[in-house]
Amino acid sequence: MTKMPAQTPNFFDGTHLGGQNAAFPDYEKMFHPKKIAILGVSLEGGSVGLGNGLLLALQAMGYEGEIFPVNPRGGTFAGLNILRNVEDIPGEIDFAIIAVAARMVPESLDACRKKGAAGAEIISSGFSELGTPEGISLERKIQDVAAKGIRVIGPNCFGIYCPKSGLTFMPSPDLSRESGTVAFLSQSGGMASDFASTGKWMGIRFSKVVSFGNGADLREIEFLQYLGDDPETHVISMYVEGIKNGESFFQTIKSVARKKPVIVYKGGLSEAGQRAVVSHTASMGGSRVIWPAILRQVHAIQVQDMQEMAQASLAFSLLPERVFQGVSVIGGGGALGVAACDVAESFGIGIPSFSSDLKASIETLLPKPGSSAANPVDVANPYVQPQILKEVLRNGASDERIDLQIMISLFYHYKAIARAMGKSVAAVTPYPELADVIAGVAKETNKPVIVVLPNPKRGLEDLDVVEMMERARQLFLEKGIPVFDEIKDAFRGIGHVNTYYAYKSAAHE
Amino acid sequence: MTKMPAQTPNFFDGTHLGGQNAAFPDYEKMFHPKKIAILGVSLEGGSVGLGNGLLLALQAMGYEGEIFPVNPRGGTFAGLNILRNVEDIPGEIDFAIIAVAARMVPESLDACRKKGAAGAEIISSGFSELGTPEGISLERKIQDVAAKGIRVIGPNCFGIYCPKSGLTFMPSPDLSRESGTVAFLSQSGGMASDFASTGKWMGIRFSKVVSFGNGADLREIEFLQYLGDDPETHVISMYVEGIKNGESFFQTIKSVARKKPVIVYKGGLSEAGQRAVVSHTASMGGSRVIWPAILRQVHAIQVQDMQEMAQASLAFSLLPERVFQGVSVIGGGGALGVAACDVAESFGIGIPSFSSDLKASIETLLPKPGSSAANPVDVANPYVQPQILKEVLRNGASDERIDLQIMISLFYHYKAIARAMGKSVAAVTPYPELADVIAGVAKETNKPVIVVLPNPKRGLEDLDVVEMMERARQLFLEKGIPVFDEIKDAFRGIGHVNTYYAYKSAAHE
Repeated sequence: MTKMPAQTPNFFDGTHLGGQNAAFPDYEKMFHPKKIAILGVSLEGGSVGLGNGLLLALQAMGYEGEIFPVNPRGGTFAGLNILRNVEDIPGEIDFAIIAVAARMVPESLDACRKKGAAGAEIISSGFSELGTPEGISLERKIQDVAAKGIRVIGPNCFGIYCPKSGLTFMPSPDLSRESGTVAFLSQSGGMASDFASTGKWMGIRFSKVVSFGNGADLREIEFLQYLGDDPETHVISMYVEGIKNGESFFQTIKSVARKKPVIVYKGGLSEAGQRAVVSHTASMGGSRVIWPAILRQVHAIQVQDMQEMAQASLAFSLLPERVFQGVSVIGGGGALGVAACDVAESFGIGIPSFSSDLKASIETLLPKPGSSAANPVDVANPYVQPQILKEVLRNGASDERIDLQIMISLFYHYKAIARAMGKSVAAVTPYPELADVIAGVAKETNKPVIVVLPNPKRGLEDLDVVEMMERARQLFLEKGIPVFDEIKDAFRGIGHVNTYYAYKSAAHE
Repeated sequence: MTKMPAQTPNFFDGTHLGGQNAAFPDYEKMFHPKKIAILGVSLEGGSVGLGNGLLLALQAMGYEGEIFPVNPRGGTFAGLNILRNVEDIPGEIDFAIIAVAARMVPESLDACRKKGAAGAEIISSGFSELGTPEGISLERKIQDVAAKGIRVIGPNCFGIYCPKSGLTFMPSPDLSRESGTVAFLSQSGGMASDFASTGKWMGIRFSKVVSFGNGADLREIEFLQYLGDDPETHVISMYVEGIKNGESFFQTIKSVARKKPVIVYKGGLSEAGQRAVVSHTASMGGSRVIWPAILRQVHAIQVQDMQEMAQASLAFSLLPERVFQGVSVIGGGGALGVAACDVAESFGIGIPSFSSDLKASIETLLPKPGSSAANPVDVANPYVQPQILKEVLRNGASDERIDLQIMISLFYHYKAIARAMGKSVAAVTPYPELADVIAGVAKETNKPVIVVLPNPKRGLEDLDVVEMMERARQLFLEKGIPVFDEIKDAFRGIGHVNTYYAYKSAAHE
C-alpha cells in the first residue's frame, strides 16, 4: 500500500487541528475501496449485529469489491466465510468497517491499519458521546491509532454512502446506485440516512455522503476541503451540530464557496437545542445571532430544515448556473397564482406582467371564461392539454424578461376523469405528454422549466393518485426537469440559487 | 316557505353593505336542503357540463334529499328526469345550484326565488371577474334578484360542501361525509376544494365549507357572523384575497374571535399578488405591512399558506383548549430532537430538561449505548417497543412542567425489518399497539400526546411504506391523536393554539 508522505501540518488537510494524524487521507481508497474488512459480523444464527446488517446492505447494493467479514469466533454469514482475524485476510485491504464493541475498537482499528487500510468507518457507539471517562479515553485511543496512519470516520456514525462504489448505510440499504453531483456531510447518522432516502425520490443524486458522528479524526473541515476539490461534486450540503474549530471551519467554507455552493443546515441554534447537541470542545455560543451572520459572510447557503436543504440541493444540481430574475407561472388555479406571486416576492424574484400583445396571443389558447393570460397564467381548468400548454410556455419564453418558467400541474384532478371513464388515474393523466412537451420547450427556448406537483389527495383511497404523481415525478426528473411539491418550495430553491450566483458574478467582476 | 322578516339594516347580517338584500339568510335551508334544483344539467349523451358533474357528485356523496335537474331541452340524466322548467318541480324547493350560461343566470335565479328557494349557489362564471361591462352588469342583475329575497353564494364559485347534508363540490366529489368542528370560508374555489381534500387525510373534519367566489351577495362578513354563532363550528379558517369593507371585516373577526379561533390566510400580500387578485372595489393597499398588524389586533391567527392553515385547523380541533407551555419530545433520533428544540424555541414553547431522578428512571427503560434520557428523549433506535415507550411517556407526564408530549415515530425503518423477515411492512410495524398505548397514556395522564410521522421514503419502490404510514395516521386519528408529518408542523400548530388561548385567558381575567 502506498500512502502520500506525511506533510507539514497545514490548514488544508486538518493536521493543524492537533496534528495527531500526519497522513494525508487517501480518499480514493476510502470512497472506492476494492477490498473491505467488516469487523463484528456474527455467525449465522447468532445475534444479528450492525456488522451483519451492513454486510447485507452492501450485498443488496451490489457492491462489486471483495468483502471479508471478521469475528474471532469464525463461522459463515450470507454465503461468506467469517475470518477469525484481520491478519487472515489475504493481502492488503483498502478500507474497514468496524462494528465491534467499543472497548475492542482501538485494537481492531490498529489491526486494520497494519493490514494497509487507508481508512476505517467506526459504526460502534459508546465513546465520547457518553460523556464518561471511559468513553472519552477510548476515543483518545482511536485518535492515537489514527495518528499512526489510518484515517477514521466516526465513531458513533453511519459512515460512507457512495453510489458509485456501492458503499452504503444501515439501516437504509436501499439507496440509489445512481451517481450524481451532490455531496452531503453530516454529524448525525439519522440525518445522513434520511437525506439520502429523501434524495432518492426527490431526484437528488449523490457523489458522496458521509456521516462522521463524533469525528474523532476526519470531520467537517477535512471533508469540505476534499469535496471542494472533488470533480464529481458540484454542490455540497451539510448538517452541522457542533464544530471543533470555528475560525478554520468558516474559512474553509469561504474558500470552498468560491468554487461551488455550500449549503449549511445548522442544528441546535436554540438554547434547548444546544443542550441537545452533544457538547464539543469548541462549539460556538450565541448561535442564533452569530451563525446566520457568519454563514452569510462566508457565502454559505443557510437552510432551516432538511426539507429546505433537499429543495436547495435539487435546485442547485438541476438548474443552470445563473441568476433567475424573472419567472413566469403557468397552470394551477387563481389562488395558486396568487400564492406564487407572494412567495416570489419574498425571495426577491419577479413575476413580470406580460405585455398586452403577449397576453392577447396567450388568450387565444385558453378556455373561456375563467382563464387569465397575464403572468401568472391561470389556465382555468386542470384538463388543458399538453399541446396547448406547450404553446403557452413558448409564448412565455418569448418575453425576454423571463429567465425561467414554472408549470403547476394539478394532476390529482384526473381522478374524477378516471372515475367517470372507468379507467385508472395513471392511464388518463397526460403526464408523459407533458414531460415531452416541457423538455422540448426548455431545450428550444434555453430557459429552464420547473414543474410543481401539489397533491391534496394523499389518503388511503387516493394511493393511486400518490403513485401516479410519483411516476410523473420520476419521468420529469429523467428528462432533467426539476419537480417540487409546492410552489413555495420551488421559489425557495430558486432563491438560494440566485443568492449564490449573484455572489459569484459579483466576485468575478 | 317562511323567511324571517326583513330587518333594519345592521352590522351583523351584512345589510349595511348596500342594503340590497333585506332577507336574513335561512342558513339552515341553505346548508341542509331537503329539496334541490340543479339548473344546467345536459341530457344523457350531450356535452357534460358543471351541472352534470355536480349532480353526479351529490349522488356519489349519498345526498339523501330530492334532486331536480332542470334544462329547457328535457331528457334524462343519471336516472333522473330532467325537468324543462323550475316551475315544473312539485312544491317548493329549499336550495338551487345554478350552472347555466352567465347571461341566463339572473332569470334562472329569479325562477328559483319564486319557487321558494332560501338560497342558491351560482357555479357559472363570466361575471364581474371578467372586468367587462357585460359581466359587471350581469352581476348587478344577480344582486337585484337577490334583493327580492333569495340569498346568493357566488357567482364564479364552487359553493357549499357540508358533510352532514351531503352538499359537495366539483371537481372533488369524494370528500368526507364525516362531520366535524372546522368551518372554512374561501373566495377561491380551488382553495376550498384542495383544503377539503387535504382535511380528509389529515384528519380535519368540517362543519361547513363555503367557496363564495365573487361574493355578489353573501360573503366573508355574513358567513363569519353565521359561523361565529353556529354551535357545530368551533374553529373558523378562511382564505381571503380581497375584501369589500375592511373595517366591518376586521370588527367582525374581532367579535367572532372572542368566541372561537379565526384562522386567516391572506393571499395577495405582495405587489404582484395584488395584481393577480381580481380587483375588488375596496381591497386594502400596503398589505404586507398593514394586514399582519390588524389581524394581530383583532386576535385572528394568521397563517402563510394552505399547509399551515391545515396544521393550525387540526391542532385547534383536536387539542384541548389551553396553553401548552412545556413539551416533552420522545423518539426520533438525535438530530430530530435537536430540530424539535430549535422549532419549539421559535414558537415560544419550552422543552424543559428532566430532573436527574426522572432521567435515571427513563434511562433504565432505554437500550444502551446511543440513547439519551434527557428531554428530548432519544430512544436510540426506531424499533423500541410500544410497551417501553408507554413507560417513557408515563415518566414524561409525571413532570408537572410538561403540558403535552410529542412522540416522533420513524416507522419507515420497519421496511428493513420487513425485508429481513420476508413480510409486509404493514405487518411488522407496531403502529396499532403504539396507537393503543398513546391513547391510554393521554387519557390516564390527562396530557395530550401528538404523533409526528416523518417519511423520507416516498418513492415508487416505497409505496408500501407510504400506505402503512397513512394507515397508521388514520388509526391514530380515530383514537383522537393528532398526527403531523414533520416536527416543525406540530410545533407550529401548538404555537397557534397557545397564542389564541393566551389571549382568551388574558381577556377573561
